[in-house]
This record gives sequence, structure tokens and C-alpha cells, in this order.
Amino acid sequence: MIATKAYAAQDATTPLGPWNLERREVGAHDVQIEILYCGVCHSDIHQVRNEWGNSMYPMVPGHEIVGKIVKVGEQVKKFKVGDLAGIGCFVDSCRVCPNCVAGEEQYCETGGAGTYNGLEMDRKTPTYGGYSTQIVTDEKYTLKISPNLPLEGVAPLLCAGITTYSPLRHWKVGKGHKVGILGLGGLGHMAVKLAASFGAEVTMLSTSPSKEADARRLGAHHFALTSDKEVLKGLRNKFDFIVNTVSAPHDYNVYLNLLNTNGVMICLGVPPEASTVPAFNLIGQRRSIAGSLIGGIRETQEMLDYCAEHNITSDVEVIDIKDINTAYERMLKGDVRYRFVIDTKKSF
Amino acid sequence: MIATKAYAAQDATTPLGPWNLERREVGAHDVQIEILYCGVCHSDIHQVRNEWGNSMYPMVPGHEIVGKIVKVGEQVKKFKVGDLAGIGCFVDSCRVCPNCVAGEEQYCETGGAGTYNGLEMDRKTPTYGGYSTQIVTDEKYTLKISPNLPLEGVAPLLCAGITTYSPLRHWKVGKGHKVGILGLGGLGHMAVKLAASFGAEVTMLSTSPSKEADARRLGAHHFALTSDKEVLKGLRNKFDFIVNTVSAPHDYNVYLNLLNTNGVMICLGVPPEASTVPAFNLIGQRRSIAGSLIGGIRETQEMLDYCAEHNITSDVEVIDIKDINTAYERMLKGDVRYRFVIDTKKSF
Repeated sequence: MIATKAYAAQDATTPLGPWNLERREVGAHDVQIEILYCGVCHSDIHQVRNEWGNSMYPMVPGHEIVGKIVKVGEQVKKFKVGDLAGIGCFVDSCRVCPNCVAGEEQYCETGGAGTYNGLEMDRKTPTYGGYSTQIVTDEKYTLKISPNLPLEGVAPLLCAGITTYSPLRHWKVGKGHKVGILGLGGLGHMAVKLAASFGAEVTMLSTSPSKEADARRLGAHHFALTSDKEVLKGLRNKFDFIVNTVSAPHDYNVYLNLLNTNGVMICLGVPPEASTVPAFNLIGQRRSIAGSLIGGIRETQEMLDYCAEHNITSDVEVIDIKDINTAYERMLKGDVRYRFVIDTKKSF
Repeated sequence: MIATKAYAAQDATTPLGPWNLERREVGAHDVQIEILYCGVCHSDIHQVRNEWGNSMYPMVPGHEIVGKIVKVGEQVKKFKVGDLAGIGCFVDSCRVCPNCVAGEEQYCETGGAGTYNGLEMDRKTPTYGGYSTQIVTDEKYTLKISPNLPLEGVAPLLCAGITTYSPLRHWKVGKGHKVGILGLGGLGHMAVKLAASFGAEVTMLSTSPSKEADARRLGAHHFALTSDKEVLKGLRNKFDFIVNTVSAPHDYNVYLNLLNTNGVMICLGVPPEASTVPAFNLIGQRRSIAGSLIGGIRETQEMLDYCAEHNITSDVEVIDIKDINTAYERMLKGDVRYRFVIDTKKSF
């Protein structure tokens, strides 16, 4: 077993603190990754605090992991020692259901193995995430990372990047489309960058005027202050897509009405209280509300390669793991532009 | 002006009774239709009773109209005296917005002219529907009706038929698709017939076991009793589409979970109380909830031609207009298989 330093939540209410865990020995298909950076996702907070009701403790969060391969199993073909590697939101899946076979492991019918707060496919061994120094994973669920981008900005691509890339590709968003991005946080700022990069006409929908400059810097062509009723009125039936990245409680219907005929609101955030959806707001213009969950391994690799080619990374603030609890508090106030990333080498 | 006998609601609470109205003189592009049959749609009740809050009185309901042309304007090309003709849910629209130009007048950006409880495009003249003996309409918004089918069964195609046909075509439902139909009423029974006719594998989703025999007779391949929790469990992730025709309050989420990856719930009914939609139920399998509204003139004609070719009509119970108030009460109890149709010639 491989002794590994980590930061863990011991229950839903105590701040995270140091903890030691053991990673499995490197199997024939495994790689051992020395973690360099790990992004801090909003869902880390939800799960640390058991806000989704499915938390297992001790919990080592973190599913935006970038590091360096330090050991490879004897059957490993994709990686060699010294390569950069990434781990996203899951580390295994059933591999045989239609979705796994189609390369959409995120929708694995039996439920895959989450990178943390999950169980390996033996359904017994807990998984521990990237707030740690080492991780051992099957090469099949491990991503190749280009050395051409700053790694701290690459880490959040493993969740925030693919979560926005996948639906934009699925709905074929690009030239000729008007896209509204709702919420400028970890997901929202990636949605702006990617949608603009795909050729869409991007409008940032926000309630805070202070975000306008940043939204434009990130690539938004327009900024709309949605707290202004006149602005909202002027945007009626305007968008082909709205990428809804908000995970605070909010009324979907305010934004549904901004969708044009056949418009789709793609929900990526999970508000703790669900919005109602009056059928009229959908029927009137054949609108849809859809959800989308991260992406499969093949598409995540495609996204990483695309970002490396187009010089796209996440805007990050690098922190020491010792500041993680403060970082959570700041995230809850929206005080981060736009992702905290743990510098693992400096932290442990 | 053309003196016309009708049945009208004078306010939201008084039963419908006889009323006289005048139709406009037949203009250059108009046809005058002697009404033979008019279907009774659930939305007639909603509007008669002002349940959608937009009712204008006196109101002559009815937007499933079939009749015979008795006069044509001098510029009319599509029809001649003696032809059969149909009128659906709208009698005009702006004709210039992108949706009208695309032949999807049901989504007219300025709002078209509803067949009743609406205003003509002058935005002054009230429209009166098919619970009457005559109607005068622009030929452009008038459908051609085949003489090969029983006309009383054709009338409901003008609303119930196109409301189910249009989304099934829009989402390209057919061979290889598993489709659940929720609710076996006016819309539901047409959805079963059409989806089965398009080659889909159709399951009737119902809470009443008494509907099984009828569902199978209409073309459903399976029947699922959704009040049984074990049955629901067995249907998880089963359907590519659910056509939701229910207009009573109900929880969408019970049925969302029956959708497979990328599955779409198409909502056609307008429940008075909206369901909540927790984002997890969409995100987990990239599901969508969509709405769809009737269909454009071109597609309505396509549907009528398809039904004539494939011998598809609505199952109806023909009534005298004098029994309309009793019919409403029976509809509210679900006591009609599956559409009341007024026999206009016998009624007036």
C-alpha cells in the first residue's frame, strides 16, 4: 500500500484537516500519479457538508486532479513514468452497459465509481479524491495532459471544463447561435470561454454589474443585467440556448422566457430547492429544459486536447491546502475568480 | 354580415346557452364554411371557466371544426363550393415573423388569432369558434379534408391530432424508439395511435387498470400500471420519449425517472399547478422536459393527409350541442372515449 497524506472531512460539520490514507498497490493496468494541483469544485462543499444526503466519512474531496506519473503497471500502454496525467469526476464504471460501451461512462447504468465519496466497482472500497499527494487509477480512466498549458489552470478543466464542453458539443452550439450564460462562477466562466471559442454569440446574464468587465474579458460579446426588468423584457425569445450554471435556488421561468422557439435551457447546477416549471413556458415556444453531467473519458480527452490547442484554461487562484476551509467560505460568497486550485507540492 | 346560430358562455360560471352572432362577409381570400362537426377540447372548459385568466365573453368555444364550403371569395384558389374543409386552433397570424415564414404559425412571435377567445389580427375583432353553424376564414388558414374518413372522427384531428403528431415528427419518433404515453384521453389516445403507426414501441402509462384493453386496442404494445411502485421500478431508464398528455396536477419526476439517457418528456397538457423539477433528475441522464404546441398549417395538412392515407381518426362520442354542459361534466370525470364531437346539423 502507498502511504498518502491528505486533507479530509471527518463529518458534516467539522472543518477539513490533515489525514493519512493508503492508496492501493499499482496493478497491471494502473498508474500512480503524484498530484501537482487539484481544483476546488462547488460540489466538494455540498458533499463535505452532506447537502446531497449521500456523504461517507472520512471524505477526501477533489476531482480536478493534475499530476505526474511516477509508476505504471506492467500492462499500461497509454502512459510512461514522467508523463502528465489527469483525473476527473470518476475513476471507474461498469464498462459493459450501453452508455459505458458508447464512451459515455458518466451515465453508467449501474453508477460508476466517483473519484471521492464513492465506492470502487467492488462496491466496498471507498474512493478518496485529490486533496492528497498520490492517487492510483486505472489508465483507462486517466487522461493525458499536455505540457503546453499552465497546469494549475488545467486542473479545473477536469470538471468545470468538461461539464460545460460536453453539453455545448452535444447540442452542437456554434456559429449562428445566440447563447446566454447564466452565472459567472467556476462553470460559468468556462462556459463563456468555450461557447465563444465555438463561434457562438455569447451574452453573460448576471445580476451584478461588477461582472461585466470580466465577462467581456473572458469572451462574452454582450452583458445583460437580469435584475433590470426592462433588460429582461428586451431579451424575450432571444436565445437559442441558455447554459444555466447557477446552483443557488432560483426561478427557471425568468430565464425560460428568454429562449426563442426550440430554445434549450441546459442546467448544470443543482440548486438545493427545485424550481417549478409551468408547462405554458415550455409549450408556448417548444422550449426544453435539459440537464447534462460532466462527460465521458473520450470526450474529456477531446476537451483537454481542444483546450491545449486553443490555449484555454481556467482562471484560478492557487491556494495552500491549509486554507481550504477559508476558501470554502469565500466560494459561498462568490469571492473567487473563478476557481481555487490547491498547490499540492507546496501544501504537504 | 352572415347571421349565425351559436352556443356561448356569457361568463365564467353560467352554463353555455344559445346565442346569435354575425360572421363577416366573405372577402376575396375567404371561404364560408357550413360547419358539420366540432370537437370538444379540454381547453374549451379551461377557457369557458376562465381557468387560464384570459377569457373574453361572450365566448363561443370550438377549434376542431369540419364542414363544407358554401361560398368562396373571388381570389380563392385552394377551395371550391362543395369541398370539405377544416379549421384548427388559429385562423390567422402575423405572416411575417420568422416562425410564420417558416410555416410554424403556432409560434407566431406577435401571437396569432386564436379560433375563439382571441382577436383577429386587427386586434379589435373578437373571434368565435366552432360551437356554431357557420364560419368565415382566410383560405390560407383553412385545411383540406379528405372525404374518405368519417367526418366526426376527423374533427378532433384539428387539435388533438396535430398536438400529438407535431412533436412526434419534430423529435423524429419511430422505429427503434420506446415511447411511453401518459394519460389516455383526447390527446393520449391520438398519441397512442400515431406513435404506433410511426413504428415506435408504445407503452400506455396509466393509473387505471380498466384502460388496458382499450390502450391495446388503440395500438399500445404494453400497458404499465403506474400506481404500482414495483412496476415503476421496473420501468426505470426505459423510455426514449414520454408523451405527457395529462392536464391534471401531477409530479413530473415520477415519470422523468423512466426516461433513458437523452430521453425527452414532451409535455402537451397544461396542469393548473406546475410541477417542480429537481435538476438532478435531468442531469443524471441528460434528460429533457420539452413542450409543444399544436402545429403549423403545413404540418396540420400533412397530418390530415397522413391520417386519411392510414385510416386514422379519433374515437368519438357524437353529441347534440344542447348536451354540451353535461359533456363538460363528464369530461372532467374522464368519462368519454375519447372525444365528444358536436353534430352541428342535428343541433341547430
